[in-house]
Amino acid sequence: MEYKNSFSEHTRTMHSSLIRELVASIKTVPGLISFAGGFPSPKTFPKQKLAEIYSQVITEEGAEVLQYGASEGDNQLKDELLKWEGYKHINHDNILVTAGATNGIYYYTRALIEEGDVIFCEAPTFLGTLVAFDALGAKVHGIPMDSEGIDLEILKKDLREFRTKGRKVKFLYVIPDFQNPSGISMSEQRRKELVRFALDFDLPILEDNPYSRLRFSGDELPTLYRTAFEQYRNPDIVTEIVSFSKILGPGMRLAFVKGNKNLVERLCSWQQKVNITPDCVTERVAARFFQQDLMQPHLEMIRSFYRPYLETMLEALDKEMPSNVMWTHPEGGIFLWLWLEERFNCDELFEQAKAHKVAFIPGSKFFPFGEEQYNCMRLNFTYSSQEQIQEGIARLATLIKSF
Amino acid sequence: MEYKNSFSEHTRTMHSSLIRELVASIKTVPGLISFAGGFPSPKTFPKQKLAEIYSQVITEEGAEVLQYGASEGDNQLKDELLKWEGYKHINHDNILVTAGATNGIYYYTRALIEEGDVIFCEAPTFLGTLVAFDALGAKVHGIPMDSEGIDLEILKKDLREFRTKGRKVKFLYVIPDFQNPSGISMSEQRRKELVRFALDFDLPILEDNPYSRLRFSGDELPTLYRTAFEQYRNPDIVTEIVSFSKILGPGMRLAFVKGNKNLVERLCSWQQKVNITPDCVTERVAARFFQQDLMQPHLEMIRSFYRPYLETMLEALDKEMPSNVMWTHPEGGIFLWLWLEERFNCDELFEQAKAHKVAFIPGSKFFPFGEEQYNCMRLNFTYSSQEQIQEGIARLATLIKSF
Repeated sequence: MEYKNSFSEHTRTMHSSLIRELVASIKTVPGLISFAGGFPSPKTFPKQKLAEIYSQVITEEGAEVLQYGASEGDNQLKDELLKWEGYKHINHDNILVTAGATNGIYYYTRALIEEGDVIFCEAPTFLGTLVAFDALGAKVHGIPMDSEGIDLEILKKDLREFRTKGRKVKFLYVIPDFQNPSGISMSEQRRKELVRFALDFDLPILEDNPYSRLRFSGDELPTLYRTAFEQYRNPDIVTEIVSFSKILGPGMRLAFVKGNKNLVERLCSWQQKVNITPDCVTERVAARFFQQDLMQPHLEMIRSFYRPYLETMLEALDKEMPSNVMWTHPEGGIFLWLWLEERFNCDELFEQAKAHKVAFIPGSKFFPFGEEQYNCMRLNFTYSSQEQIQEGIARLATLIKSF
Repeated sequence: MEYKNSFSEHTRTMHSSLIRELVASIKTVPGLISFAGGFPSPKTFPKQKLAEIYSQVITEEGAEVLQYGASEGDNQLKDELLKWEGYKHINHDNILVTAGATNGIYYYTRALIEEGDVIFCEAPTFLGTLVAFDALGAKVHGIPMDSEGIDLEILKKDLREFRTKGRKVKFLYVIPDFQNPSGISMSEQRRKELVRFALDFDLPILEDNPYSRLRFSGDELPTLYRTAFEQYRNPDIVTEIVSFSKILGPGMRLAFVKGNKNLVERLCSWQQKVNITPDCVTERVAARFFQQDLMQPHLEMIRSFYRPYLETMLEALDKEMPSNVMWTHPEGGIFLWLWLEERFNCDELFEQAKAHKVAFIPGSKFFPFGEEQYNCMRLNFTYSSQEQIQEGIARLATLIKSF
């Protein structure tokens, strides 16, 4: 039996997350320092507490959590999530617990996108989401960013153009806080303007929020969801997905979607067909983590843990890089973004960097298909040690200078 | 913002698992005895061992299992699965670990089905799968069963008819062991004939296997996958999905798909876009459960535990039911199936049964849309106590006799 002739069209043509192959290709290089991955540091995983809670939950509540749970998600966890975020205008029906953020993004996209519909996003943006959009038959178009986030003038112009041509632009996908891959955070003013624009032009926003709790300095900014609620009393225009991957650990697949009730109910209908429910043990463990007041001190620990790594990378860049290189200066998250002069092609640089025993992800991977830029790269600062960061940035600078 | 006008077509029109609503509607009836659910008994959950293993896994391997894992699934678990089933001709690349069986079924269907393609299944069959097929745009057609399983003559005739009309029949979905909802197990002879037929007519088989390890009496039968391998040295025609929901507990979302490598690789591509990976903690806990040689004694415990419940239900049916009622006599699993005379409509009976404080799932829910039969019902025997089973069957018999 050959299956390849039986595959559905999108199954035949869909892209893989190229990062997997890139990361696999450097695994075997001895002594290589990698800024390529998007992995949190295992040192931030609250292992001891989680071990206790897992054991407690199974022992005391095993009959419940090992049984089928609600497709909507565990109510005890939802209680904690509502308390954590402090929203009074919403309830359990506005929340869907999912097996990670990508899972929630998949349901949202599945619920809204018909073959050929258009999704707008920031350019660059998270590759994992781009390949999911693509596999679901969406055409993705990227809107450039400046230092304050997505460029609203270009967004307006492009939305008008697409709509004039009769294209259905179904939603805008954004990562306002410590964006993957750029590290850029949208300014408060830009958030207000973006939500105002979205309301005026009926453009739903999908807000991906994996990093907002990983702020090491500066003032916290309201999410777009909060902005829509507090500024305009109209939160339904935004659907926010909050991930626990960089908080508790990505091996526990856990995230939640917050938004309009009718929409959440439809996402839940997809959940029933795709996963039935999230992992109920994982859900209750997360609920207990909140109930035992462990989340706040844990987040403070993560922030203190990561801050020096970011500082080390920024200092190393300042010290090592030639003056024709620019980079972002994030106040949190796990990535920063680096631009070279136009003549550089970071896809090619990636291969040469292997010989210099340093790795990054070429920037081109983070643009919608057909809209690639090549003179940029993503650097992760949360996985290598501080010594490795200094040495790795020095190697990278040597390579760039040698051009 | 109103989302309902923005939903994709299948999101607007898709069915829910009606069982949810039925089960919800009886929850509030005091003293009701329910044979409606498909829940395993919480007494079969290996709580104590799992509590220890969860704690061990997080303490000793937290840095690994709380991190991003492989989309293909945990290699340690795959090693154990290969040992468990004893296949020598396959390796890790033939296996995808998924967040439950429905998740694997979703990927398989997504990989093969284009809008309007046809899926054949047994009639009746598992409702949860029917709604997933439907939501993915497939037309589902049911093939009747006799006491030995799917009717091959009708299968042949219908396949010829559909193909003559130019319809693409992409695969056949079957549950050969202790089928949900009927409790029927396909005979060994029928298995051989079905696989031979599938090979001759290039009809891939999706074998759903949640119950084969729950055999309380009689001889074990080879799965279709094993039949294809051992009888015809051609296992690729069958893709088998094995669930741990009735073994460890459905709250741990865990199953695995076994099949052709190219196909498994494509399912994995969908997994990357939908869930990234299974829950890595859950995977490793299951691996340790095998490694500590706990699976075999645990399965024996479950079988001894459930056997008396099935016996009690069969005895109660013998004792209570009038002669115009028929039912299946499964040797395992969690369901049996009951037929009434044609004049009965079990959708209506369900409402009256509530007043008699007993519940079941009307048989009509388990047929493809538009092919419903109404004089049948599904009874679960693993959730109520033996006393409740006796009393509940007596109530049901009283109701049926009163017609």
